[in-house]
Amino acid sequence: MSHPNPRNILVIGGGDGGVLREVVKHDCVEKADLCDIDEAVPRLSKKYLPHMAQGLENRKVTVVIGDGLEFVKKEASKNHYDLIITDSSDPEGPARKLFEKEYFEDCYNALREGGVITTQGESFWENLNFIAGVKRACKEVFPIVEWAWSSTPTYPSGTIGYFVATKDPLRDVRRPVRSFSREEERKYFKYYNQDIHSASFVLPTEAREVIEAA
Amino acid sequence: MSHPNPRNILVIGGGDGGVLREVVKHDCVEKADLCDIDEAVPRLSKKYLPHMAQGLENRKVTVVIGDGLEFVKKEASKNHYDLIITDSSDPEGPARKLFEKEYFEDCYNALREGGVITTQGESFWENLNFIAGVKRACKEVFPIVEWAWSSTPTYPSGTIGYFVATKDPLRDVRRPVRSFSREEERKYFKYYNQDIHSASFVLPTEAREVIEAA
Repeated sequence: MSHPNPRNILVIGGGDGGVLREVVKHDCVEKADLCDIDEAVPRLSKKYLPHMAQGLENRKVTVVIGDGLEFVKKEASKNHYDLIITDSSDPEGPARKLFEKEYFEDCYNALREGGVITTQGESFWENLNFIAGVKRACKEVFPIVEWAWSSTPTYPSGTIGYFVATKDPLRDVRRPVRSFSREEERKYFKYYNQDIHSASFVLPTEAREVIEAA
Repeated sequence: MSHPNPRNILVIGGGDGGVLREVVKHDCVEKADLCDIDEAVPRLSKKYLPHMAQGLENRKVTVVIGDGLEFVKKEASKNHYDLIITDSSDPEGPARKLFEKEYFEDCYNALREGGVITTQGESFWENLNFIAGVKRACKEVFPIVEWAWSSTPTYPSGTIGYFVATKDPLRDVRRPVRSFSREEERKYFKYYNQDIHSASFVLPTEAREVIEAA
């Protein structure tokens, strides 16, 4: 199966605009929709975090204020997103359902053949059993589910994780699809690069034992 | 050059005993010396952090209360340590000199042929130019100097780095020397394993650009 560069992206949550900023700078991206439940997030981000909020005002972007669960369900079975990024808060209150099987099913159906989701994946220091449970739920829907992490000082414990799942049963998401020259990496990224893509899926022993078994 | 398992270890700082605990559990280690400048650290660690302080009371261990700089200088030119681990506080006040060329020279001379040092290496989020400066100083002494990092929630920014240097000009310290089975990894380590050894040397783009150039 071929893996064309992503063209149509959906961001659930992420109302601060930071994820959008990172998405739209890639020329291959034609359209990025964002659905955040709280209108105050983009409003205050524009006022106080303009370096992040700039993503909200890009010409490729459509911002919807509403329930991400309903948005994805409405889009489900349309099969048109290449990538759905869930940039949610922790799994308490309204965000809880973004970590459950029904949401993953709706994402699956909103993705084109071979499409990918990545969702907020908590911290291996604090939420190991929760991570394992979400991975199991996601594996009931997607044939490939992996878990990566990054150093993220602003989150509790200094890391945040990411579930990465794809409809393509033959794909190894631990390897990057796109290739970047050193010059392109310097241009596009402060953190990400091809080597750290793969390294981010390498887990500390105790986390590995729990997450790989899930 | 062969790389026998380390037998004689020196820890500078680390008076809480945590590093020693991790060192002495390996059967290959015959002797571990520790020199910490502050007697209160082992004393209070024994009282309040017994799970770490247990390393101080192992039969392989000799604890010296004194200035690590002087201790290493005294041991310099003896060429008998396989590994010197510097587990210091930040480079302010007395710890400052543990990040300077003269200390690295003394470590070099206290190490056997092919020996290795690893020293506290600060955070790539907060101290990038400092890291580059220390790397340059270390490279004036050791032929091979690399920098790795781990997720460490108790440090500011949630990560801590490690300089790893060796007298052996042909050695790639980014690859582990010892090999462990999955079962051994589960037995010995909560964090470390062979894959994360190498992954820990993979740097985020902005950090890579600065540290690799140093």
